[in-house]
Amino acid sequence: MKLKKIKKLIVFAAHPDDETIGCGGTIKKLSQNGCEVIVVFATTGNTGIDQSRSYEKNIKNIRLKEANSAAKILGIKKIISWKNSSQELQYNIKSLHSAIKLIRKEKPDLIISHSNIDKHNDHIVLNKIITQACLKAGENLLPSLGSTYRVKNVWAFEVVNILSNIDYVVDISDQLKFKIDAINKYKSQHKIVKGVKNFIEGISLVRGYEIGTKNAEAFLDISLQPKEVL
Amino acid sequence: MKLKKIKKLIVFAAHPDDETIGCGGTIKKLSQNGCEVIVVFATTGNTGIDQSRSYEKNIKNIRLKEANSAAKILGIKKIISWKNSSQELQYNIKSLHSAIKLIRKEKPDLIISHSNIDKHNDHIVLNKIITQACLKAGENLLPSLGSTYRVKNVWAFEVVNILSNIDYVVDISDQLKFKIDAINKYKSQHKIVKGVKNFIEGISLVRGYEIGTKNAEAFLDISLQPKEVL
Amino acid sequence: MKLKKIKKLIVFAAHPDDETIGCGGTIKKLSQNGCEVIVVFATTGNTGIDQSRSYEKNIKNIRLKEANSAAKILGIKKIISWKNSSQELQYNIKSLHSAIKLIRKEKPDLIISHSNIDKHNDHIVLNKIITQACLKAGENLLPSLGSTYRVKNVWAFEVVNILSNIDYVVDISDQLKFKIDAINKYKSQHKIVKGVKNFIEGISLVRGYEIGTKNAEAFLDISLQPKEVL
Amino acid sequence: MKLKKIKKLIVFAAHPDDETIGCGGTIKKLSQNGCEVIVVFATTGNTGIDQSRSYEKNIKNIRLKEANSAAKILGIKKIISWKNSSQELQYNIKSLHSAIKLIRKEKPDLIISHSNIDKHNDHIVLNKIITQACLKAGENLLPSLGSTYRVKNVWAFEVVNILSNIDYVVDISDQLKFKIDAINKYKSQHKIVKGVKNFIEGISLVRGYEIGTKNAEAFLDISLQPKEVL
Amino acid sequence: MKLKKIKKLIVFAAHPDDETIGCGGTIKKLSQNGCEVIVVFATTGNTGIDQSRSYEKNIKNIRLKEANSAAKILGIKKIISWKNSSQELQYNIKSLHSAIKLIRKEKPDLIISHSNIDKHNDHIVLNKIITQACLKAGENLLPSLGSTYRVKNVWAFEVVNILSNIDYVVDISDQLKFKIDAINKYKSQHKIVKGVKNFIEGISLVRGYEIGTKNAEAFLDISLQPKEVL
Amino acid sequence: MKLKKIKKLIVFAAHPDDETIGCGGTIKKLSQNGCEVIVVFATTGNTGIDQSRSYEKNIKNIRLKEANSAAKILGIKKIISWKNSSQELQYNIKSLHSAIKLIRKEKPDLIISHSNIDKHNDHIVLNKIITQACLKAGENLLPSLGSTYRVKNVWAFEVVNILSNIDYVVDISDQLKFKIDAINKYKSQHKIVKGVKNFIEGISLVRGYEIGTKNAEAFLDISLQPKEVL
Repeated sequence: MKLKKIKKLIVFAAHPDDETIGCGGTIKKLSQNGCEVIVVFATTGNTGIDQSRSYEKNIKNIRLKEANSAAKILGIKKIISWKNSSQELQYNIKSLHSAIKLIRKEKPDLIISHSNIDKHNDHIVLNKIITQACLKAGENLLPSLGSTYRVKNVWAFEVVNILSNIDYVVDISDQLKFKIDAINKYKSQHKIVKGVKNFIEGISLVRGYEIGTKNAEAFLDISLQPKEVL
Repeated sequence: MKLKKIKKLIVFAAHPDDETIGCGGTIKKLSQNGCEVIVVFATTGNTGIDQSRSYEKNIKNIRLKEANSAAKILGIKKIISWKNSSQELQYNIKSLHSAIKLIRKEKPDLIISHSNIDKHNDHIVLNKIITQACLKAGENLLPSLGSTYRVKNVWAFEVVNILSNIDYVVDISDQLKFKIDAINKYKSQHKIVKGVKNFIEGISLVRGYEIGTKNAEAFLDISLQPKEVL
Repeated sequence: MKLKKIKKLIVFAAHPDDETIGCGGTIKKLSQNGCEVIVVFATTGNTGIDQSRSYEKNIKNIRLKEANSAAKILGIKKIISWKNSSQELQYNIKSLHSAIKLIRKEKPDLIISHSNIDKHNDHIVLNKIITQACLKAGENLLPSLGSTYRVKNVWAFEVVNILSNIDYVVDISDQLKFKIDAINKYKSQHKIVKGVKNFIEGISLVRGYEIGTKNAEAFLDISLQPKEVL
Repeated sequence: MKLKKIKKLIVFAAHPDDETIGCGGTIKKLSQNGCEVIVVFATTGNTGIDQSRSYEKNIKNIRLKEANSAAKILGIKKIISWKNSSQELQYNIKSLHSAIKLIRKEKPDLIISHSNIDKHNDHIVLNKIITQACLKAGENLLPSLGSTYRVKNVWAFEVVNILSNIDYVVDISDQLKFKIDAINKYKSQHKIVKGVKNFIEGISLVRGYEIGTKNAEAFLDISLQPKEVL
Repeated sequence: MKLKKIKKLIVFAAHPDDETIGCGGTIKKLSQNGCEVIVVFATTGNTGIDQSRSYEKNIKNIRLKEANSAAKILGIKKIISWKNSSQELQYNIKSLHSAIKLIRKEKPDLIISHSNIDKHNDHIVLNKIITQACLKAGENLLPSLGSTYRVKNVWAFEVVNILSNIDYVVDISDQLKFKIDAINKYKSQHKIVKGVKNFIEGISLVRGYEIGTKNAEAFLDISLQPKEVL
Repeated sequence: MKLKKIKKLIVFAAHPDDETIGCGGTIKKLSQNGCEVIVVFATTGNTGIDQSRSYEKNIKNIRLKEANSAAKILGIKKIISWKNSSQELQYNIKSLHSAIKLIRKEKPDLIISHSNIDKHNDHIVLNKIITQACLKAGENLLPSLGSTYRVKNVWAFEVVNILSNIDYVVDISDQLKFKIDAINKYKSQHKIVKGVKNFIEGISLVRGYEIGTKNAEAFLDISLQPKEVL
């Protein structure tokens, strides 16, 4: 796979800011290449209320606004929100079929979502939804959800939980500053995930080391299907 | 990766006939494309003496001759034999450095060897030698073994032991007959691995099913290093 | 265990046709021996609509009819349908207690169902229902669901997903043709799972190779309880 | 960690009697030290009706009374019952938030619950609830559930299912007799889990052997967070 | 499998006393049934010198004598000693071929040895030797080591390290006292493995609980080959 | 465990510089506390010759000198070199007994070495030597190697290979600059492991994030024995 060939990317993120932490640099790099980037938030992130600001009534809207500001910086074209509550995301027919429908409609070249080697349950659940949806989208059935489409590339990113084994690395030395700018937009979360900028910088150095560059992002192949080599 | 871009392949097989069983179809397909194929036998296969022909004195030479006949059919250009005894293959500095030296000299685009999810100890040992050799070949050290060369693609094939997870599949519908012809040349092993032709045909159908074709071979990515996506 | 001692078998299949793909040959062999075979379909398979025949209104009945035709060929005595929708099967008290009740009533010598090493979520869920039901059926509680019965043999079959480790192999060289005849009855699924006949033949050759016969089916022991050796 | 420093312990048990089987000796030892012990039963254990006493109408109350008697022997200060039915325990927002709320309110030094290496589904589900609750209790969010509290020690006990790897062992040579007395109070379960006293004695000898004492209980570290070493 | 059908058993133990700790009860039960029991010690156990008796010159002979006394109690017919040093056992052609030769000569119905889920390296190495030897003994090659013989049953016992998953359980309620008598004969090891009698009694109660009996021994199936069900 | 209670630390590193990369900050912090730190190099690191400086004759001495300079910065009191060649480290009686002897003589409160979740074979082998040595050092045998000593804390560090699960984290915010100074002393390796300073800084930020500090080092518990909680 070449980055240049990725014309459309869908990122399925459990909560607003996971897309930036996990693959903000790769999103920016692809959007700079002319790739169309769509981000789906599986939950509203509504439980993410900083305890010192517990008067916060409007957390869902605040996080969505922040996500839109971050999106502008990273070149994300469209944000889709599934409106589930945090910690309540479930693998069910509704979430599975929503994902299949979107995948078949948008026909992305690459999907990025969460790994199931992760501490947070919403992340694990979304991993299951997306990997199953990619599998089913490519089978010759469920015609009401659109025509069969087989996603060639399905990756998981690193959101706070580090992966021991990784398959792909993308150089983001020129994009790191945009990633930092984007995470700065998520003000409501800064006290909740204190030090996340340090984490972002740190992991970019660690992954850059893998390929002899300054900063990088790493990914795991989570497709349930093998690739045909032509 | 595209098959057309594979200009040189090295197959590291534990015993003569593993190369045919594991990836005879892919070897043929690549050699038809003009790819240069080198096969290394890590052992002579000397313990493979059919009990009903126990007078067999000359098993090493017999197997090597058979391997040469099979090689002609599959389009293998060169056979290298490491002369170890079967069941005695060891991970040591000699085998490791032989592999590094050859890899740095030949600069293959693809290496195929054994998986470590395997019942046979020689297979597991060779997996370790080759995966470590690929790692070390790409590091900036050991100058007496040649200049640093990073192998981009390192795969494991299926030799009798089936893999639950596979990463790549190659359509060999047009090459299966050559694979069968090649295995027929290994006459000394026919009673030892009775029914291996059935196995070869069967697994080709099972793997063909994965990609919607008649016959295929499947592979696991065993590189210890992630791939940089450019 | 001897096949002759299996007087009653229950197969718990996620969708109509899984019973044939997974263990059609063993069902036929056992029914030829006089064993009573019951098949439970955990879902109706209603999402299995071929996209080119999307006018299909009646998919549940079509698949059940096909299942009945296949059952005649294989010697299945009774089909039970749980009426769940595909992709919606859940591990819950209803499905668990249904399974316990049936097991305690029928007292089978052998149960065959799905493995949890599988890509399809319905398969994984059914594995959990059945393994838990076998465990609970044998405990001295839940009297409203019948008297305690401990199932001695609980196996998983291979439905499209291949198992790396297997425990049991059954020679089906004389039964393969019936298995093929039975799968031919599932016409509504032929375009959905294109090449499934190739898969069936292929895996039978692969598993036959394990025991030195032509065709076989392989199984994994999935009982949660050890066997007492008397 | 020193036992003397444990001033408050919460045990989350799936069913009444799991707390005694899993860590009755450690509860006793800690309560003898002046530690406050709270036990939460995630289910009522209502399906635990001995088949020979199937007239049993009142199983929930019977088990709760038994639990209270056992609690007196072991020095448990408070019992909390979540009122779920056995085999129906689910990981959901209600159970998760109940656990977070209790943890933040009580601020225990140690939590003991089930491992996820276990045959019984209620045990596995409770493991998920408690490990996630400990993680979330320590994050700076969900202010309506109380102030952030990070649980330092989260252990799993052995309830019938043996653990291959254990992290901690507590000498209960002087407490075993209380543990046996406590289990004797669970009369309604004696026929259901026949021989559980043998099991309790046996595993205490096995775990005592690990540390060169007569009787002991073993635990696994199940915290999702690393410990800071100061 | 029925115990009555086991006419010959070979136990491969890493050190003298492992055979008693791991399966002394089963050995006694089988020998009472008329089964011939052979024990192979892979090492002499020479490093097993109690520090308080460090003047011990003759440890190899002492342990062998103790083993002979234990053997009399358990009904072991023959002891074979491979004369390796403790902690030096290696997987190599010599140990592998010795095992194949013995297996092909003796044609045992059951082999019991160590699991590879074990802390002690000699145990792990012996597991590899024996599982590979069983595989190779059944292949149609290596005629100088005797005629092909496929071992149907290959089990691992529990020697101090507990197994989380077990496959088989043997009731030894009537044999435990002989097992205790036998371990008493290993006087040189009593201070080294202090409390081993407690361990033996404890694990027999734990495993007895699995099958509703007083005392039992548990085993894991470690055969590398599936069983054909006839 | 408290850092203040660590009076003696032994680090077993496969190659000179692994001690600095893996736990240079923790070494410095402990030595500042008055802890005595001993470093053992299992190999000379002789294959680590930068290809552009292939005239290098004296690599063993160069690396040892560099190690001594780094040791001064970090407060390491003693360096011990085992003189094995890189890539040739083996688990054998010599290396095992050397480690046991040293452990029994020095009686360290903490041992740090490699994890076996690692790509480099020397690291995996050293993990085995050290974990086995810690186990055997604590057993009542091998009197010629010194008196029984049970090591309470055995940790693995992160050397280039990242760990998904970690158990302990040490704040090194005040020690990072010394760690960087120390790695600067390993000039012969700077081109071989280009960017290692970036890696060191990056991973310190990632691990700092785990505990809400700037920089940290993370460790895995690799003891083969459970801890008794008193």
